[in-house]
Amino acid sequence: MLGPVKLDPESGVPLYRQLADAVSRLIDQGSLVVGDRLPPTRELAGQLGLNRTTISAAYAWLENAGLIRGHVGRGSFVARGSQPVQMAGLDWNAILPRVELAAAASAPAEISFANSRPADDAFPMEQFRRRAKEVIDSPDAREILQLGSPLGYAPLRRYLLEQARHEGLATNSDDLIVTNGCQQALDLLARVLASRGETVILEDPVYHGLLRVFERSGASIVSVPVTEHGVDPEALESAISRRRPRAVVLTPSFQNPTGASIPTAKRRRIVELVKQFGTILIENDIYGELRYHGEPAPALKRLDESGHTILLRSYSKVSFPGLRVGWVIAPRPVIAHLAELKQTSDLHSDQLSQAVLLRFAESGELARHLVRTRQDGQLRLIAARNACAAYLPPGSKYTTPEGGMNLWVELPGRLDARDLLAKVQEQGVAFLPGHYFSVERSHSRCLRLSFGGLSPDEIRRGIRILGETASRELAASAENEFEPAPALV
Amino acid sequence: MLGPVKLDPESGVPLYRQLADAVSRLIDQGSLVVGDRLPPTRELAGQLGLNRTTISAAYAWLENAGLIRGHVGRGSFVARGSQPVQMAGLDWNAILPRVELAAAASAPAEISFANSRPADDAFPMEQFRRRAKEVIDSPDAREILQLGSPLGYAPLRRYLLEQARHEGLATNSDDLIVTNGCQQALDLLARVLASRGETVILEDPVYHGLLRVFERSGASIVSVPVTEHGVDPEALESAISRRRPRAVVLTPSFQNPTGASIPTAKRRRIVELVKQFGTILIENDIYGELRYHGEPAPALKRLDESGHTILLRSYSKVSFPGLRVGWVIAPRPVIAHLAELKQTSDLHSDQLSQAVLLRFAESGELARHLVRTRQDGQLRLIAARNACAAYLPPGSKYTTPEGGMNLWVELPGRLDARDLLAKVQEQGVAFLPGHYFSVERSHSRCLRLSFGGLSPDEIRRGIRILGETASRELAASAENEFEPAPALV
Repeated sequence: MLGPVKLDPESGVPLYRQLADAVSRLIDQGSLVVGDRLPPTRELAGQLGLNRTTISAAYAWLENAGLIRGHVGRGSFVARGSQPVQMAGLDWNAILPRVELAAAASAPAEISFANSRPADDAFPMEQFRRRAKEVIDSPDAREILQLGSPLGYAPLRRYLLEQARHEGLATNSDDLIVTNGCQQALDLLARVLASRGETVILEDPVYHGLLRVFERSGASIVSVPVTEHGVDPEALESAISRRRPRAVVLTPSFQNPTGASIPTAKRRRIVELVKQFGTILIENDIYGELRYHGEPAPALKRLDESGHTILLRSYSKVSFPGLRVGWVIAPRPVIAHLAELKQTSDLHSDQLSQAVLLRFAESGELARHLVRTRQDGQLRLIAARNACAAYLPPGSKYTTPEGGMNLWVELPGRLDARDLLAKVQEQGVAFLPGHYFSVERSHSRCLRLSFGGLSPDEIRRGIRILGETASRELAASAENEFEPAPALV
Repeated sequence: MLGPVKLDPESGVPLYRQLADAVSRLIDQGSLVVGDRLPPTRELAGQLGLNRTTISAAYAWLENAGLIRGHVGRGSFVARGSQPVQMAGLDWNAILPRVELAAAASAPAEISFANSRPADDAFPMEQFRRRAKEVIDSPDAREILQLGSPLGYAPLRRYLLEQARHEGLATNSDDLIVTNGCQQALDLLARVLASRGETVILEDPVYHGLLRVFERSGASIVSVPVTEHGVDPEALESAISRRRPRAVVLTPSFQNPTGASIPTAKRRRIVELVKQFGTILIENDIYGELRYHGEPAPALKRLDESGHTILLRSYSKVSFPGLRVGWVIAPRPVIAHLAELKQTSDLHSDQLSQAVLLRFAESGELARHLVRTRQDGQLRLIAARNACAAYLPPGSKYTTPEGGMNLWVELPGRLDARDLLAKVQEQGVAFLPGHYFSVERSHSRCLRLSFGGLSPDEIRRGIRILGETASRELAASAENEFEPAPALV
């Protein structure tokens, strides 16, 4: 229970913001402490006689400020106190400085563009159930339940390595290790290759989980801007020749957050560059299989005959992200180091999911599901592009990806994407503002629209609300040209 | 194919060692390179007209030396070249110094005491299959396959937290995060609490995977010896007062490798100590549920009312280690930090296994399996103790655990456990020599016998071979008293 909360509908301050301020004060006063559960939005809306979207917007604002955290299916909880948390005996706040949470991703919203993930209503449940039961009933089940190898479940490794060799993605100098998705692959690579202040070049903007991995490892981070056609080889050459990095990390196909892809000719140039400068190339190919139209471009790993490229792939975006199975293909010494660290980190990846996904792939279900995923993806992408053209305010820019799950919008004027987020959340729409993806540039007027989990209709409705709200805000800011917009955080 | 290998049965050098030397030379010369597969032991035994155990012993020696690596079901592979591996363009050996692998654990042996893991022939397969299918058929399956929370699958978290509160293991200030077994819990804790050179006190000897985690994190490691009754509070107090560590890491019940447990009165004293000095106590309670006889002792976490203790638990030793599910119970600020790092490390733990293990626990199967596991464990433990009494050479010492999976032997005289390993491997027996578990002390005359995966009969036969071989070696070394034993590595 929140206790009495007084809101003034006439004050001019939006109701969601009044509510968020009231909750902030309760946290400041210690009436709400870390871990306390906030009332469900529906319940609080009833209590206060407010619209449920107002409650959602207030919670989103609090989450954005790092004060609360939402968990799907469990509700929202106070995430940090404004006062230092004094626990008996130990001053945990002195030992552990407050965590900045990557919050808004889980903010509640009717139409959420916030997560780059597949639509679960398109999961082929019947096929999954059949194949999973085959694994469970098989005589191999006993071995699957026993301790395994840090390199991965042997039959899956063999399958993936053979497939990679067949596709020209692995040479005889390469080996393969199974990881808990690409996220763990990045974490292991950062710890093996860039834990002593080594310079690493990243794309800007870039997936925040990738940036966080290299920040944590202690790498010295340099960035190269992402253009309409991904990273430009000339800009990359300039950065490499000046900074002589240990590694360059690229997502050449349908990059997160921009959706941009690097054309084949530029890929060839990049592979030459890393060879020329003796730089390691880490290729995050998590979206590579999700091309909906346009000319296919080969993986950098395939173009690289000199053994500079480390390829990351995953089943998460093309099948079931809740099963944590990705893999790395790289020269043997790299895999040996990753295996040693993997063993120290968590012994090995879960074997049940490795075996189930192997069965799902070998049986042909994965290929069939991929065909449907690409068809659906194309419809989503078209809906997103058409809606951007129809509803975004004049002067907006947006990328036109040929696949993947993400599209990047740059708003005109001085509209801050965080302010816009608060406004559209009142109307049940969420996205991630550009600053989440910033390496060196601010991207404050930008935002990522992840369309992978939404229907074409939801995409249209969401972008319409976004565009119309942005237009209104732009008009309002033109009226008050000399009044600076209030900072949200 | 190995090509021609000449062995001299009359040379006085054991055949296994001649073979190992020959393979080492082939690696030195570059005739065998990293990743090459060695012939299966059976095949090579046929080719060379040798006993298969001789081949196994040679491979074990090579594995112990880090030159090859065995993978269950796949064979043995060359793990490193004696010459630097020059790959096109990049000198990977300059970038990545050679990895030292924790090898012998996977060495082939008919009776292997090398792995601390449950017996897979006792896995309740029928019950596992039924419960796994219930999860797969449930309407929750779709959500399980979607991206989840870094804190863990919400229904499992809720179940574990309620259970912990019921058992007095979690207070209202505590929270819980699901990890990929205790290994990941240790890795996350080391990175969160001891990545800036903080001093950490470990037990000596200690599980090498635990030691490796803190070495990697950059902690400054201090150790306290493990006695028959675990770590002694007086020795711990002396170390804490001198070194003022950030954290103490203890496995108070059935410690790996010694099997020792700390009695209740000493536990109380330890909890007082950490409170008095403001030290964090990390309690690795992975074996705590596996008591076969004697007085139960409460978890340190239960005795600690001051919020200094972080409790690690896991389903791996009591059910299926191939499903990677453990958890941490700790004050909320610790869990918040672990969640942030967990998200960066691998987003979240595999949800299928979390859901299956929840069902397995909630349905009562886990409790029933645990009863059987304890009964079987008691028989194994009795067999191990009786065999030690009957067969180990006079003057040997061994621990007498009341549970768990491990027993620690100290050999008399100057017998090095690594030499003994080579000798017993010729007879199809393997174990891990003491130096694997060394923090500051050498333990060269010690060895760990992990009996969890073997039948009472295998345990008796294995310890008999071990004891008789040790006795022979002792007699031989008494004859050549002034000739120092050759170092194996």
